[in-house]
Amino acid sequence: MNGADALCDTLLASGIDICFANPGTSEMHFVAALDRKPQMRCVLGLFEGVVTGAADGYARMADTPAATLLHTGPGLANGLANLHNARRAHTPMVNIVGDHASYHLQHDAPLTSDIEAIARPMSHWVRTTRSSHAISADAAQAVTQARSHPGQIATLIVPADAAWDESTADIAIAEAPKPRQRVDASAVRAAADRIRCGQRTTLMLSGVALREPALVVAARIAQHTGVSLLAQQSNARMERGAGRPVIERVPYPIDQALSMLKDVQQLILIGAKAPVSFFAYPGKPGVMTPPGCEIHPLAAVADDLQHTLEWLADELGVPRDLAIRKPERVRLPLPTGALTAEAVMAALGVLMPEEAILCDESVSAGRTLFGYTRNAARHDYLQLTGGAIGAGIPLATGAAIACPGRKVICLQADGSAMYTVQGLWTQAREGLDIVTIIFSNRSYAILRNEFKSVGAGEPGHNACRMLDLDNPALQWVQLANGMGISASRATTAEAFNQALQRALAEPGPHLIEAVI
Amino acid sequence: MNGADALCDTLLASGIDICFANPGTSEMHFVAALDRKPQMRCVLGLFEGVVTGAADGYARMADTPAATLLHTGPGLANGLANLHNARRAHTPMVNIVGDHASYHLQHDAPLTSDIEAIARPMSHWVRTTRSSHAISADAAQAVTQARSHPGQIATLIVPADAAWDESTADIAIAEAPKPRQRVDASAVRAAADRIRCGQRTTLMLSGVALREPALVVAARIAQHTGVSLLAQQSNARMERGAGRPVIERVPYPIDQALSMLKDVQQLILIGAKAPVSFFAYPGKPGVMTPPGCEIHPLAAVADDLQHTLEWLADELGVPRDLAIRKPERVRLPLPTGALTAEAVMAALGVLMPEEAILCDESVSAGRTLFGYTRNAARHDYLQLTGGAIGAGIPLATGAAIACPGRKVICLQADGSAMYTVQGLWTQAREGLDIVTIIFSNRSYAILRNEFKSVGAGEPGHNACRMLDLDNPALQWVQLANGMGISASRATTAEAFNQALQRALAEPGPHLIEAVI
Repeated sequence: MNGADALCDTLLASGIDICFANPGTSEMHFVAALDRKPQMRCVLGLFEGVVTGAADGYARMADTPAATLLHTGPGLANGLANLHNARRAHTPMVNIVGDHASYHLQHDAPLTSDIEAIARPMSHWVRTTRSSHAISADAAQAVTQARSHPGQIATLIVPADAAWDESTADIAIAEAPKPRQRVDASAVRAAADRIRCGQRTTLMLSGVALREPALVVAARIAQHTGVSLLAQQSNARMERGAGRPVIERVPYPIDQALSMLKDVQQLILIGAKAPVSFFAYPGKPGVMTPPGCEIHPLAAVADDLQHTLEWLADELGVPRDLAIRKPERVRLPLPTGALTAEAVMAALGVLMPEEAILCDESVSAGRTLFGYTRNAARHDYLQLTGGAIGAGIPLATGAAIACPGRKVICLQADGSAMYTVQGLWTQAREGLDIVTIIFSNRSYAILRNEFKSVGAGEPGHNACRMLDLDNPALQWVQLANGMGISASRATTAEAFNQALQRALAEPGPHLIEAVI
Repeated sequence: MNGADALCDTLLASGIDICFANPGTSEMHFVAALDRKPQMRCVLGLFEGVVTGAADGYARMADTPAATLLHTGPGLANGLANLHNARRAHTPMVNIVGDHASYHLQHDAPLTSDIEAIARPMSHWVRTTRSSHAISADAAQAVTQARSHPGQIATLIVPADAAWDESTADIAIAEAPKPRQRVDASAVRAAADRIRCGQRTTLMLSGVALREPALVVAARIAQHTGVSLLAQQSNARMERGAGRPVIERVPYPIDQALSMLKDVQQLILIGAKAPVSFFAYPGKPGVMTPPGCEIHPLAAVADDLQHTLEWLADELGVPRDLAIRKPERVRLPLPTGALTAEAVMAALGVLMPEEAILCDESVSAGRTLFGYTRNAARHDYLQLTGGAIGAGIPLATGAAIACPGRKVICLQADGSAMYTVQGLWTQAREGLDIVTIIFSNRSYAILRNEFKSVGAGEPGHNACRMLDLDNPALQWVQLANGMGISASRATTAEAFNQALQRALAEPGPHLIEAVI
């Protein structure tokens, strides 16, 4: 077999059977290998930002890495922004990046670039495979790295000759994922002591502490001891909805974040980072906790957070069967009248089906979502983790591939939708059950707020031309139809409710332009 | 004034009055400064690949750099692929990349990344400005670097506090561009001696040697001495069309390139690189000249190529007023019947208006273009220089902004069009005179050839799913309309001719889907 076959076999033997791809000449042997490896599902994205973002969404839901296949330095560069988001989400991912044949690099042909240098800022692990004989061991190592806790971006660069030359080495297999590390007993006891001392305490959670089993334990601790719970501002995945413990997030707007945290005297971090403002604003603090608030990291995101919480509960004498008070499920009415971002959230709260997956890149439009969906049907909530816009459509694409039985709902701001709009085509081609809701406000609305927040005053004519997406307005129904997606446009709450019901009832991808 | 004002003033004082932009929070003070600096034209792109590609197209036609405005590491990352192309085109460009306030970096907020590391692989010069007082001197240095020969990518990273803090330093101005360096007398005499010795000699040209004044001198040398002329495979800009000397390019397909060069005994490089294959192919050479062919670099792309050619002509005793034999301008008939890539090229050859600018990312579809446009109306020819697809639509956008009186024709393959399809919106917003012709073959057609060329055999079912863009087919009329561009679809040569005539007659942007 050749190196490309060995690479495919290694990925398959190591449990990776999905590859999001946009290949070029240097990856043709990998593509050819697909004909011999029907177990490897290869999903084409028409731009690399779609490829890496979909791999992120897949792994967040599947809890196991996908592979990507990218073409040389520029192809990898196109995927970097969503690798940045994936890195911030602690998503495991294995990127296979083709390069020129090793002996061709000396010629500095037009597509030549320093791929390792391009990979490094967004990768935890980078290696260029030396030959077809090394490729299997290197690929296995990449998978091992990707699956190390809390999830890493592993980038393996494969010169074309390493793919096409014969490979005689045995097929290597990645190491089985190690169990997550448990925190020190002394740290748990210290945290319990702190909670007992009576200061106003918040447990700040992220990572797998936001999955239901951990949340239930955290909620018992809160109920028994009076500490409050809070999720960090952005998280890879949260399990939410009726019957699950309710947890709020630190809000994005700095004044709201400061206000929410103003009375906290001690913050115990369980898989979370201490809250800081997303950007600096003149005259405002960067750290969101008040002066004097003590910050105690108890468990890092890589640690065994479930065990940490259980142990902490035991230390605190929380009964293991303590029933959590849950708010009753209230069926709210469907919204009526003018279509607003809030009306969309209200409709979602009512209409969202059981086990939906919400992919949220609604940016400024989505800030009321949590209130309306607290008691909605049970769902997973995936969000933009690194602030690099263009994540939503790809995330939804990957999540839908990971969870074929579930409905994916993508809450998508219009400005950021344009970044990776090509992902709609992949949704159509793969027939994915995704409803994309475009918040069509025809502006980078968040920047209008930020303009004032950073002290730049009121935007005038020239500035507005950089903040508004009008003239011409984007026609989302046409854009979606152009990529094979059925679409509709709603300008009232009633029309939106109807469009959403219809889209949720039909299989396959749909898009609704919510004109707000 | 604040740092952002100082930055704008420095750019304006240094001759940069156009900025392609996709700003975010960290650039809001620059955006605010635009309200106070109406001389700075700011053009919004809905994705950074559009921004950097448009800046490339602008500078290729204006012969002076544009600025770009990009948002932190991921925004820059999204623009890297077209920076790669610009770097290969020796395009001058000044990138302004906003970062977090310097004191905020310690918090590792979600959008934090190592911007210098992201910039370096595609930049000749990278600097992070230290403060609002340093910003003017740094920006002036960036322009100086960008304008140094043969054109550099200069990236200046601006922390938000350097933009919003007061700046008391004087406004610095970039150094005036230095004259290009002249080659050594001995090198010119040696080249003349080589030409006289009677070996089969080719002058290979690139850079400004492909502009008309230099081409005329080169053509006189060829006519007087019997050497042949050839342009390198891809070039930033060529001046072509009726009345201008005809020069062929080295073809992309390796076998054609080898065949074209097989009898060359010595190759003299004037602004060109020695020809190598774009990719390596098993069992084929990487160097396109035959064994034993001597390669003599006479002038680098940064050198004064016009002077080199004139001097060489004098050394060779070429009469300065030697009339160049030019093929007569033949009016070919318009194509009829089935629509093929060749029919599109034939129609262009007939219908292209005087002083059109052709931006060519037709990839595999465009290979007959030169034959049909040799005697077409005079035009500039801009092509994909670095092999990073997604250049065409942005290049056309920038070229149209640089040359408002001229018609821009973008020859655009469908697969690569999707990479930066967002650029159509900028064309609509700015009302640019651009006709985009989409070669709609619903596949990465070039990869079907490459698949065989690298020895991967015939693509099977799984491989074809990575090479074909069908199921669903992209609907280009809807995609264009969705971004405010009038569009039509042609399936016969007659329909295409008519659509092209109409599009060329009307001002503003148009798109034609040529179904081939």
